[in-house]
Amino acid sequence: MKRESITQKDIAELAGVSSTVVSYVINEGPRPVAEETKRRVMNAIKELGYRPNKYAQRLRAKSTKALRQLGIILGGGSEILRRPYYGDIISGIYEEAYRQGQHIRFVHFFDELHDPLLLNSHVHQEEISAIIFFPLYSALKDPKNHALFMRIVERIPIMVCLEKAVADLPAVIFDRVGAARTAVEHLISLGHRRIGFIGGKGERIVGYRQALSEHDVPYDEAIIIHPGPKNSPGEGYEAALQLLALDEPPTAVFAVCDEVAIGAIGAFTDRGVAVPQQMAIASIDDLDLAAIVRPALTTVHVPRREMGIQALRMIAMQEAYPDSPPSSNVLRTELIIRDSCGAKLRERRS
Amino acid sequence: MKRESITQKDIAELAGVSSTVVSYVINEGPRPVAEETKRRVMNAIKELGYRPNKYAQRLRAKSTKALRQLGIILGGGSEILRRPYYGDIISGIYEEAYRQGQHIRFVHFFDELHDPLLLNSHVHQEEISAIIFFPLYSALKDPKNHALFMRIVERIPIMVCLEKAVADLPAVIFDRVGAARTAVEHLISLGHRRIGFIGGKGERIVGYRQALSEHDVPYDEAIIIHPGPKNSPGEGYEAALQLLALDEPPTAVFAVCDEVAIGAIGAFTDRGVAVPQQMAIASIDDLDLAAIVRPALTTVHVPRREMGIQALRMIAMQEAYPDSPPSSNVLRTELIIRDSCGAKLRERRS
Repeated sequence: MKRESITQKDIAELAGVSSTVVSYVINEGPRPVAEETKRRVMNAIKELGYRPNKYAQRLRAKSTKALRQLGIILGGGSEILRRPYYGDIISGIYEEAYRQGQHIRFVHFFDELHDPLLLNSHVHQEEISAIIFFPLYSALKDPKNHALFMRIVERIPIMVCLEKAVADLPAVIFDRVGAARTAVEHLISLGHRRIGFIGGKGERIVGYRQALSEHDVPYDEAIIIHPGPKNSPGEGYEAALQLLALDEPPTAVFAVCDEVAIGAIGAFTDRGVAVPQQMAIASIDDLDLAAIVRPALTTVHVPRREMGIQALRMIAMQEAYPDSPPSSNVLRTELIIRDSCGAKLRERRS
Repeated sequence: MKRESITQKDIAELAGVSSTVVSYVINEGPRPVAEETKRRVMNAIKELGYRPNKYAQRLRAKSTKALRQLGIILGGGSEILRRPYYGDIISGIYEEAYRQGQHIRFVHFFDELHDPLLLNSHVHQEEISAIIFFPLYSALKDPKNHALFMRIVERIPIMVCLEKAVADLPAVIFDRVGAARTAVEHLISLGHRRIGFIGGKGERIVGYRQALSEHDVPYDEAIIIHPGPKNSPGEGYEAALQLLALDEPPTAVFAVCDEVAIGAIGAFTDRGVAVPQQMAIASIDDLDLAAIVRPALTTVHVPRREMGIQALRMIAMQEAYPDSPPSSNVLRTELIIRDSCGAKLRERRS
């Protein structure tokens, strides 16, 4: 209980400096403090177990910026913490936060925040100064979810969306349609005219169709497989078996992500269909794994860690220029040609 | 600013109930409240934006349990958020926490907590009631780290270690030595007498040596490769190339984890060495991926999600019986025979 009453004055006394200097150390400014003095103040803070009074601190700083703590809100379920794709993005966020001296105050699932006690105590300007939001799935179409979302935005105006822009908020995204188009065009450039599609119903199938129509390749519903919502290797495996069971299977497959592609390759291998000789595959993501599996995947690189890093930089920009209009930061993707598409095999032969 | 002054009395008025009932809803007891009444109270909380005063709440509850919020402290760097192995454990923790109505208050890296301001404000009984600690790497041998660790334990006495027991704290672990022994014994049972080792210098090499000596298989330094500290696919790849370059390469390899095994298989494939016909491989982990890559991995299953779940249950037990002595919960592992070891090939042939 005693701890509650420790003030910056107590720290100043123990460290043998003025209260003003203590405040400079805690708020990292506005004036610099000599390293040796800073060390003494930090030691006193450690010894006394001082906790800054956030409310008082906020008044003093006349803004919420002093806290520099971020919240991460995930639109999906806990399942996504198991996907290397999201692991890479989140690790990019933690890394850049650490570099900037910010802290991630929490990682919550959007659904949890329907609990008003949790919402009121965590999503509050005394706790966090900004939010990074992963609007996975289109749950925001549900009016109840949309109302909660608007309540969050009202409380924490500095918010950056990752992967998908919503409600005119700033966002860090990549061109999903373009990435899909690039992968499919690559397969077309290798002479394929019957290219199967494995994946969900999102933007990637739009890119797939664009590539086909731009190159006068007919679209055939029969080779479009939507195996399930998870885009998991298991779904890729099942979808590949379905393609092989057709009277006229495709000669190439576009898988919407690496995990689906790896699953599909497993199925082709089990059925004795050689990749890439008898079946070419290209996908999107370029997980670390893509270079390691055999055949190594031809895939469109999505800069995942960079997305996390850019999200933090956009937050810093918004804090510095609160009146600039929200914009989207569209990161570049890049086709990485490895072995699963057969392009290298062809080169070697010619 | 107005929000600061909202009390349970205000909520009681708006909801048309007594303050006592409001307190029952917020503290989830000690008496039950009818669903309809609870809903009215929750709506009032939502409308007024009420935030419980943690300090007052603690006094009222005469314990810290009322908060039921957990902190996760990771011993490694942000890199570990990219590993599917840890992603599975952390997702198990979030899942079980959600089921128990608890919240994860933060995920911090141990190193961050050297900042006394962060330590004092986050690692505090008003913020969290328990900690789940991943003591990765043996950083605690450093006296400075050890002092920080003891400071954390003093503040938050309810703490469960994952993967490794430290300082007599309760822990959820699996028998690493035993898991390695199981995998290596399986390779020996298939007739291999020259089994390479790829991985770090931890407990797994102890299990490897135990298996060899129990079956009178000679130990040979030449086929022990410690490729690096990360146990990554890339390191597995390089180590496998080293084994192939030997005058007398092994006929089988034990890789300390699936990611290393997948990397090694990539190298063998690239060099035209067929797995399992010319080189058998077994590892530990059983990531989702293990069943999907080709050849599918023979590996020892580590119940990762279960580790996260059990950690939360141990915390609940400690809260319920604070005087019970700390113990370790050792989870079972299980050998999963797939294709990389050659056992199935042999069965089919015989």
